[in-house]
Amino acid sequence: MLIVDDRSILQPQEAETMEKNTTRDKILMTGAHIVRMQGFNNTGIQEILDAAGVPKGSFYFYFRNKEEFGLEVIDLFTKIIRERQQATLEDFGVEPLARLRSFFALHIPIFEKDGFEGGCPLGNLAQEMSGLSDIFRRKIQSAILECSIPVRRCINEALEKGHLPEGIDPGELTDYLFNSWEGAILRSKVEKNAGPLLQFERMAFEHLLK
Amino acid sequence: MLIVDDRSILQPQEAETMEKNTTRDKILMTGAHIVRMQGFNNTGIQEILDAAGVPKGSFYFYFRNKEEFGLEVIDLFTKIIRERQQATLEDFGVEPLARLRSFFALHIPIFEKDGFEGGCPLGNLAQEMSGLSDIFRRKIQSAILECSIPVRRCINEALEKGHLPEGIDPGELTDYLFNSWEGAILRSKVEKNAGPLLQFERMAFEHLLK
Repeated sequence: MLIVDDRSILQPQEAETMEKNTTRDKILMTGAHIVRMQGFNNTGIQEILDAAGVPKGSFYFYFRNKEEFGLEVIDLFTKIIRERQQATLEDFGVEPLARLRSFFALHIPIFEKDGFEGGCPLGNLAQEMSGLSDIFRRKIQSAILECSIPVRRCINEALEKGHLPEGIDPGELTDYLFNSWEGAILRSKVEKNAGPLLQFERMAFEHLLK
Repeated sequence: MLIVDDRSILQPQEAETMEKNTTRDKILMTGAHIVRMQGFNNTGIQEILDAAGVPKGSFYFYFRNKEEFGLEVIDLFTKIIRERQQATLEDFGVEPLARLRSFFALHIPIFEKDGFEGGCPLGNLAQEMSGLSDIFRRKIQSAILECSIPVRRCINEALEKGHLPEGIDPGELTDYLFNSWEGAILRSKVEKNAGPLLQFERMAFEHLLK
């Protein structure tokens, strides 16, 4: 069993903004953390309940089955990412490309907290589940789309201000940055350091977007 | 049980160059395919033996345990990638950046064969296993390093010929391209199409490296 602080997927200020910890939230947040660290198929319901310290049987009171729980984990992570986007991408006093860079940079100390072992929860689930379940695949597809919209808006603003290099398609750039960032997170899991994330930042913002 | 052609992880000409199918090769190749499609922890030894059509008990004659089998799967995939690199990166009649682009492009029809569901075997195992097993993590780290060397050589040649944009560090570029490519493969699993892979190619070779 993993020893889990059920708030460890969140930054302290994010934990404060979460609703009062009901049993359901407790299962969801503890489970989300375990799934992030060791995979969805590799995590048992009993393991989640033990780590959350809630009685056996509670799970099926709140979730129809493990799949429903997994889909709610995706919603939870999407919500967390969206809050981080609001704090960075929507900080309109700052130039758009600098806001975008802040959004990526914000995650580095978060990944550092678990020695870069956890990685991106959406990326992990995408990797593990896309080929196994079309319901998960579509849910992850929607989550990525939802998180892409504010990035795209920021890039459109950079385009209007003439801050993008000639000829770059803003939609393609949005997807490319998201995907490259996911690849950098994956590599940082393998290397156990921030190197690939910092490389991504430099290559994207000091070369591609210069 | 998956219905598996044990050569389906390979292109036809690659299958021909593999050694004569011994029982051990049969277990390894069939198992590698299943692991690629559904994950390491999610694959049972019995499932591999059933799919390979070899008798129960054979597994432990050839492999000490599932971990040893998993590490050999990484060796097999590394060997396959190295062969693809030889066919593209070492085609010295072609300019270095064009060779590099060919190496990435070569994989698109391979991923297409399984509807983009399988993705990159090394990336999948990196995602699933890096946080769970330090032995796997180090093995994957070495495999990536081994596959990075020919890419780095190609990039060094481009640098010497003056084909790289000013100020790009060749080591950083090697890692960045590898990682971004992995991210694009992951996204193509979610989207079930080649779009992210083609986007990667365009952004890397028509913008970043122009």
